[in-house]
Amino acid sequence: MSDGDAAEEIMCATYRALCSHGYADLTMQDIADESPKSKAALHYHYDSKHDLLCAFLDYLYERFVERTADIEAEDPLDELLALVDVVLQKSESEPEAFETALLEIRAQAPYEPGFRERLGRFETYLVEAFVEVLSRGRDDGTFVADVEPEETARFLVTVLTGASTERVTVGHSVESTRRMLRSYVRQHLLAESGALEA
Amino acid sequence: MSDGDAAEEIMCATYRALCSHGYADLTMQDIADESPKSKAALHYHYDSKHDLLCAFLDYLYERFVERTADIEAEDPLDELLALVDVVLQKSESEPEAFETALLEIRAQAPYEPGFRERLGRFETYLVEAFVEVLSRGRDDGTFVADVEPEETARFLVTVLTGASTERVTVGHSVESTRRMLRSYVRQHLLAESGALEA
Repeated sequence: MSDGDAAEEIMCATYRALCSHGYADLTMQDIADESPKSKAALHYHYDSKHDLLCAFLDYLYERFVERTADIEAEDPLDELLALVDVVLQKSESEPEAFETALLEIRAQAPYEPGFRERLGRFETYLVEAFVEVLSRGRDDGTFVADVEPEETARFLVTVLTGASTERVTVGHSVESTRRMLRSYVRQHLLAESGALEA
Repeated sequence: MSDGDAAEEIMCATYRALCSHGYADLTMQDIADESPKSKAALHYHYDSKHDLLCAFLDYLYERFVERTADIEAEDPLDELLALVDVVLQKSESEPEAFETALLEIRAQAPYEPGFRERLGRFETYLVEAFVEVLSRGRDDGTFVADVEPEETARFLVTVLTGASTERVTVGHSVESTRRMLRSYVRQHLLAESGALEA
């Protein structure tokens, strides 16, 4: 088994262990129990639970970047909505237990610089992806000429973060956020208002 | 000391203990250490840490309702912005440690129905407050005639939830959310666009 395969196997075990145990009580033994590897073998690859979870956040980041790279869109409007959908689908296709574990990890960010750094990288990537498509759509006339890509991108990311938190906190589906965001884009960003059916 | 004073004292001790210890490792002893009361006395009032934290969420809810009741506004626009400010000020006037503890509590909601019920009540109250002022402002011509109060209210609450999560997760100030929301209100909700300077 290559190092890459071993890492992939450990990441999958970490995912299953987070779904079963949540973050707070998670131990290296829980992760080993979900994997063919022993706890000692996990420690050979990662010094601590913290290191392993940092690697896990890197793994999620890479998978997310791959998914956004796979977006095939006809124009900036399609692309913007597809990007929103990738984020929302990530949220709704995961079990609530996993979303919950991720929110637990987010809540540890102030105490764990390694977590905060990785969550910040994720957010920066997403903001930049929105800025890029908003700028392109403004320049080609898809979006209104006075759209401010940076400010709008941050706004969209804040909405998506809020939707993910609300799913865990009060059990809302992300469907209403999808509807609201499509309506926001249609009414406020699109140059030819009404061209998009919600 | 009346029961009310004792409860207030315990709530203040809980606040301090959450700021010092966070939620995950918090014990009844930590709360007793922040209070003139013994751990036994705390248990006289609350059966468990869970019961005490449910009472604490009720206490936060009541204080929040009082703060929104104190809003004095000239018109629906002022009132909407003041409501946004009450939520954002709540966020920025608290130490980051307290916001973090609250996010930890939010992340426990799927496992703790008592938490979820209270967080849901908080969210419902806020949505209804926005619906009320949006409806009034639509009817008196402050806001555009086609504003959908329910959908817009949920959108605003999702943005505010996202801003609070991002403050903990990546350390953003809520200032950029305030600016974005004022700009959103000015550009998209206000009937006479431009009447409000950001």
